[in-house]
Amino acid sequence: MKHNYKMTVSYDGTSYYGWEHQPGQKMTIQGKLETVLTRMLEAEHGDDGTEVTPVTVIGAGRTDAGVHARAMTANVILDTEMSEQEIQRYMNRYLPDDISIDELRICADRFHSRFMARGKTYRYTCWYSPEGALPVFERKYVTVLDRMPDLQKMKRAAEDLTGMHDFRSFCGNSHMKKSTVRVIDAIDIRQRGCFITITVHGSGFLQNMVRIICGTLLETGYGRRDPESMGALLEARDRKLAGPTAPAKGLTLLSVDY
Amino acid sequence: MKHNYKMTVSYDGTSYYGWEHQPGQKMTIQGKLETVLTRMLEAEHGDDGTEVTPVTVIGAGRTDAGVHARAMTANVILDTEMSEQEIQRYMNRYLPDDISIDELRICADRFHSRFMARGKTYRYTCWYSPEGALPVFERKYVTVLDRMPDLQKMKRAAEDLTGMHDFRSFCGNSHMKKSTVRVIDAIDIRQRGCFITITVHGSGFLQNMVRIICGTLLETGYGRRDPESMGALLEARDRKLAGPTAPAKGLTLLSVDY
Repeated sequence: MKHNYKMTVSYDGTSYYGWEHQPGQKMTIQGKLETVLTRMLEAEHGDDGTEVTPVTVIGAGRTDAGVHARAMTANVILDTEMSEQEIQRYMNRYLPDDISIDELRICADRFHSRFMARGKTYRYTCWYSPEGALPVFERKYVTVLDRMPDLQKMKRAAEDLTGMHDFRSFCGNSHMKKSTVRVIDAIDIRQRGCFITITVHGSGFLQNMVRIICGTLLETGYGRRDPESMGALLEARDRKLAGPTAPAKGLTLLSVDY
Repeated sequence: MKHNYKMTVSYDGTSYYGWEHQPGQKMTIQGKLETVLTRMLEAEHGDDGTEVTPVTVIGAGRTDAGVHARAMTANVILDTEMSEQEIQRYMNRYLPDDISIDELRICADRFHSRFMARGKTYRYTCWYSPEGALPVFERKYVTVLDRMPDLQKMKRAAEDLTGMHDFRSFCGNSHMKKSTVRVIDAIDIRQRGCFITITVHGSGFLQNMVRIICGTLLETGYGRRDPESMGALLEARDRKLAGPTAPAKGLTLLSVDY
């Protein structure tokens, strides 16, 4: 039976070249999932003469190299007699231990995890300790700052980035031909002990957009950029005028809404 | 000036042969701390003719190879003009990123982190998912179970282990000549989602004692051992009659009380 399966995937992106297939043999999350699923179908259909075509896993978004996910949504069409639980168990058994299938269910044939995503929440996590202490258990998922940014300035700048804007200044792909207009619903900045988190919820994001926003907000927090300058930066539509792309390891896709 | 310094250390024990010095060149937490501190004193006293004797860091306990700590307490006598913050920063700068000095303060000369420890709290963390999912961000700090233990049975057995007992049956050192009597104040067992934690608070612990207790409680939870049999097991004073030593990676020293 052919069904469309929806799954929730968590991964530690440290060792991967991001979600999406890359030219060559580079390790990607999508690639790992497809390899395991194709092998699963080959094992099932090996004797019954059915030809197994390589499967395509569609992800809600394409996280960059080194970016993590707590709940990426993906879907895949599979021709199998296996139950949902059998598929999930098979995948978890053969996937490396930095990728986990946390849910897997048959969904409507028309469900498309990318086109139907209504919003995504990303969290960027920073760490600052005046004494140079490190969060040893979370060290691969945070960006360590060498001084404390002024969160009030960052919050002020973040306000002007929310809403519908042309985010071309915050787009990592300089050859982007399609619209660079996106909607950010909320940017929440908070501190808890040595952790500083920037949580961004929006309808969709351009390449590197969250990381460029975070790099720009941090520059504002360090006093190197006027918190009132975001409007002009958006209007300029020039990537070179925004801040640096913040390091990938601090970024985690928290969830996808439908 | 010579002072006694008390510090709180967190570490990811995955890559270490435990806290305490080992024969040969094996990597230990104590060894790393002492190397960095000795180098620090050599850098300070290199020109003033003072001879630097290698420092000795005293830890509250000796965690096994692969065991982690959120707040190990240690103390060390240092002859330095550096401030507390300067020492802490130096250590954090030169220690690897799986060890962090989270606090460092001058303490009373008579303070001894091991002899004066009144109690310790250890947490053993297990994970069970019927679908084989994994906690990708905590995967190095949990022991994955292949079935769900009966927590009621484990709690029943744990009750009989609390109090003052001769824990020789739970001692990993068969040549132990000193008293094997210890006091366990509480064993708390709980489930939160797929996580199952066993938190043990006691006055002090024998070698491998927490891990043997956890291995024995899990056997009880799997129905392979009678929850009512702990009294007889304690009385037998025979390590061979207790359960297996649970894997080190699931164990974390949470705190030390004084």
